[in-house]
Amino acid sequence: MDTKITQIRMSDYPGNRAPREIWQTTHDALPELRDGQVAARIDFVSIDPGMTGWITDKRGYMPPVRAGSVMRAFGVGEIIESRSDNLAVGDWITGFLGVRSHGVFNDKDVRPIAVEMAPPELFLSGLGMTGYTAYFGMMDIGRPQPDETVVVSAAAGAVGSMAAQLAKNAGARVIGIAGGAEKCRYLTETLKLDAAIDYKSENIGARLDDLAPNHIDLYYDNVGGDILDLALERMKYRGRIVVCGAISQYDKETPQGPANYLQIVMQSIKMQGFTMRDYMHRVPEAVQELSVGLKDGSLICRQHILQGLDSFPDGFEMLLAGANEGKLLIRVDHQSA
Amino acid sequence: MDTKITQIRMSDYPGNRAPREIWQTTHDALPELRDGQVAARIDFVSIDPGMTGWITDKRGYMPPVRAGSVMRAFGVGEIIESRSDNLAVGDWITGFLGVRSHGVFNDKDVRPIAVEMAPPELFLSGLGMTGYTAYFGMMDIGRPQPDETVVVSAAAGAVGSMAAQLAKNAGARVIGIAGGAEKCRYLTETLKLDAAIDYKSENIGARLDDLAPNHIDLYYDNVGGDILDLALERMKYRGRIVVCGAISQYDKETPQGPANYLQIVMQSIKMQGFTMRDYMHRVPEAVQELSVGLKDGSLICRQHILQGLDSFPDGFEMLLAGANEGKLLIRVDHQSA
Repeated sequence: MDTKITQIRMSDYPGNRAPREIWQTTHDALPELRDGQVAARIDFVSIDPGMTGWITDKRGYMPPVRAGSVMRAFGVGEIIESRSDNLAVGDWITGFLGVRSHGVFNDKDVRPIAVEMAPPELFLSGLGMTGYTAYFGMMDIGRPQPDETVVVSAAAGAVGSMAAQLAKNAGARVIGIAGGAEKCRYLTETLKLDAAIDYKSENIGARLDDLAPNHIDLYYDNVGGDILDLALERMKYRGRIVVCGAISQYDKETPQGPANYLQIVMQSIKMQGFTMRDYMHRVPEAVQELSVGLKDGSLICRQHILQGLDSFPDGFEMLLAGANEGKLLIRVDHQSA
Repeated sequence: MDTKITQIRMSDYPGNRAPREIWQTTHDALPELRDGQVAARIDFVSIDPGMTGWITDKRGYMPPVRAGSVMRAFGVGEIIESRSDNLAVGDWITGFLGVRSHGVFNDKDVRPIAVEMAPPELFLSGLGMTGYTAYFGMMDIGRPQPDETVVVSAAAGAVGSMAAQLAKNAGARVIGIAGGAEKCRYLTETLKLDAAIDYKSENIGARLDDLAPNHIDLYYDNVGGDILDLALERMKYRGRIVVCGAISQYDKETPQGPANYLQIVMQSIKMQGFTMRDYMHRVPEAVQELSVGLKDGSLICRQHILQGLDSFPDGFEMLLAGANEGKLLIRVDHQSA
């Protein structure tokens, strides 16, 4: 097969540069398959906050992408050629397929998805890492209880919106923080959260004081920075903070540490982080729970789909700016490729 | 009784001033007792890091000391007059007795101590809040396991030295961080820790890399600041951080938040604070465990005893500077009073 493939590579670590300067598109031949490998046409590529960690050479939860390599990304695709005993042509797979139109993978590095259950792209959003991250972070670490006050930052984002709905479905009072009136309307009107705070136009601290006069039982943090400090100041005694991410800090050379972190002592707070590495063995549980909610409408998963691999640099900036509305995906354009 | 008593009052919140300007000594008459009250001669007053939180008007784990009031402090003393059904003249008590030579207390605000078991001042150090804080922080939250690598900051300090020994006795490899060669020698030679790092003369990060090449399982933090960041960078996956205090930050208007806190996500770390409020019901357990260790010599509790209430302002500065060697106490001078 002499398929011409499009790939987006990271030419160098960005350091202090704007990350968009590091992306480079190449057109290559699809490599020959070896035994145990499959070739796939990739239909959707996922743009995730985790990428910011993969393009630095700091110690992270995964080895960094090497300069010159194809950018790492989750994707879904259909197998078009197979020398694997486990995966056949026509099967759909997900995993780190990369920012590219096609790729060759070892069969043990990818896993099949049940596209008869849901459209393939949902395995990159509500039924993918996004959904699992929301599910385990909120339900296994956060453990919201009925009538507790739960605050979620970046609540209109991919993970935040799922996490907020899961807390709401568990009976908690949920306050979402998001940027802009439209996102806030989405939180209260579509997702039925109890309240929303617009961090772009409102005084977050004053609004939290109004909405949570008895303080916060559980804070699910996706943003870090000032909002984390404002939440720390308002945690209930023995409150819990789930540290899922810090989108406000990923583009900073030195992140802003939470100046109010001593509230962890004063209020006997537990602050916990996690990565999906802790939970891969429990993915079937998440898929089960999430697919029920997504089917019966008690969980809504919004997707923001960009067209074509060329949109990747813009999409990555959009993610950092919080300009996307829902899980950010690229639909790979196989017509014009 | 017309006992003349000496009291040290906080005249105002220090704000940005050096705290020593706010202390004021007064000589007052001992108030008349009401029913249910006792009067005590106070023999020892404890100087604790927690005091820094009591002299700000920020939200803390206790209400702040009010301007003009006698400074709050733990103490031990003997009852010299009683209108209580529960406490008699000659009984010894502990509690928030204040920085003063004598005081009148409601009997339910103090508790008796068994001075036949140990000298009274030990109930302010190894068998007091210091010991309990080390015990519950290390053994209930930290839970060191055999062969784990445990790092303790301010390891020659009152709480740190007890916490480090408890981890060592639990079978962990314990690295203590302290300021100065003498303190470091104390850690390895007297307390038998596995290693000590002198933060005043050594490169802490490089030494941690040498001593804990496979990273840190458990970090018991008493100091905050740069050392917390250096530890965060070197935590093992699923490592635990016990946040006991941040002596390096208490005199700062805006504390330095840990810039490396995103390691909490990357390394799936649990960072937990606590106050003794969570554990008051379990104090007998701590007294039992600690008194066995203090008796058989497997726990060593060093005390740094200052003479006379007038030494309080110096003692408080000494604590902030880490200049004390062991639990800082004042022996009240009743001869010259």
